[in-house]
Amino acid sequence: MQTTTVNIIGSGNVAFHLVQHLVNIKSVRIQKIYARNPKAFQQLFDFHLPITNDISSLHPADITILTVSDSSIEEVSQQIPYSNQLVVHTSGTTSFEKIDNKNKRGVLYPLQTFSKTKKNLDFSKIPLCLETEFEKDFVSVQNFANKLSNNIYKISEEQRKHLHLSAVFVCNFTNHLYALGEDICKKNQIPFEILQPLIIETAEKIKNLPPNEAQTGPAIRKDTQTIEKHLELISDSATKEIYALLTNSIQKYNGKKL
Amino acid sequence: MQTTTVNIIGSGNVAFHLVQHLVNIKSVRIQKIYARNPKAFQQLFDFHLPITNDISSLHPADITILTVSDSSIEEVSQQIPYSNQLVVHTSGTTSFEKIDNKNKRGVLYPLQTFSKTKKNLDFSKIPLCLETEFEKDFVSVQNFANKLSNNIYKISEEQRKHLHLSAVFVCNFTNHLYALGEDICKKNQIPFEILQPLIIETAEKIKNLPPNEAQTGPAIRKDTQTIEKHLELISDSATKEIYALLTNSIQKYNGKKL
Repeated sequence: MQTTTVNIIGSGNVAFHLVQHLVNIKSVRIQKIYARNPKAFQQLFDFHLPITNDISSLHPADITILTVSDSSIEEVSQQIPYSNQLVVHTSGTTSFEKIDNKNKRGVLYPLQTFSKTKKNLDFSKIPLCLETEFEKDFVSVQNFANKLSNNIYKISEEQRKHLHLSAVFVCNFTNHLYALGEDICKKNQIPFEILQPLIIETAEKIKNLPPNEAQTGPAIRKDTQTIEKHLELISDSATKEIYALLTNSIQKYNGKKL
Repeated sequence: MQTTTVNIIGSGNVAFHLVQHLVNIKSVRIQKIYARNPKAFQQLFDFHLPITNDISSLHPADITILTVSDSSIEEVSQQIPYSNQLVVHTSGTTSFEKIDNKNKRGVLYPLQTFSKTKKNLDFSKIPLCLETEFEKDFVSVQNFANKLSNNIYKISEEQRKHLHLSAVFVCNFTNHLYALGEDICKKNQIPFEILQPLIIETAEKIKNLPPNEAQTGPAIRKDTQTIEKHLELISDSATKEIYALLTNSIQKYNGKKL
């Protein structure tokens, strides 16, 4: 298989997991990594990185991946010292048009939650959502993406924005519900680990069952007595409001045809 | 190991999964199952059940498990034709005092989400929360529970009520967020399966990381621009309200010391 050379720009969570994965792929070679603080990024790895804090020293690569924050994409992409090369960003919410148009632009959006503190992440299972400015570049991005993951999707900008929104619901908001659940446990000297099997089963269940069919609990049963008991148990007013709103939403949603 | 005889009262989701598990445990013998509609319950299994629709025909067993709905526990427990035996219910929200006091009362609350349509559930990993009226009965319930699961907890009524509340957050409400996420995908012709790896990783992540440390996304980053873009994308007003409330809650919660 032909070796693909890659420049990585940025040193955040996405860059960390990307680098960790790419070094293990034989047909990919990391040509250069640009980080504002090379030392700090290098320290996260136990192998030597080809890293620089001088973006103007980068040379063209088969693909350049911008992993910087959404608000920096425009400015940083202008500093890339070459043109007419394939440059993709990894943002769920940003148009490829934010990338300076001296290069051939695209998107490689990995749909996952990245934390540096959670190191063992199987990147090959992460869905990669691809888009390119020019149709003829799509195959190049696709070939590269296929080396990284078994889950490749062609996703338009409009779809990607909605996918990112959806991810906020199923990941960020869900995690916050875990935090609220843990809070209730802590206040009552209950080990939060008791809830682990339930949390995993809830997530696993919808692999085969649409979420609205998998819905259980007092809201869907219209068990008013339990709902009222629960509201009495919640001391925090913001948490009480979340309980009431989500309970209402479950009851309304269930009758709704999509 | 000594064989424990069991009577099961009720034919809902908990009874279904309990029976499916108990028949595979050598040291447990299902003595009788009471169901209002024995035929319907029998049809869920490909083996013959000792089942009756006449509760007065039940004989004492080592343990009697009431799996009926919370509101039926009191009435059905009065109809049990024996006394001074161990009778437990499986409810997260109900006091054991709802069980008629002619028997020795307790609770065996399996903390899991049960659907008949999701048949492959590993019961041995389900946390069982135990409580008994009399201290001397606890060992009997514990010995029985140890045959069923590797996750046994002694949980008081007050703790159990809060645990059940917490389960509503991490399971029922979480599942509803999955449903809202799926809704956004459907409206934009995005296959919901794209979100599966993210959903699983979000659930897996908190095995090792406390939820408030695992929090990612625009709310915790205080990324106002993305939050506003998201609110614009949401057409349904109830969903918009959920987005705003959970975003606020994440931002408030993070600074809060527990």
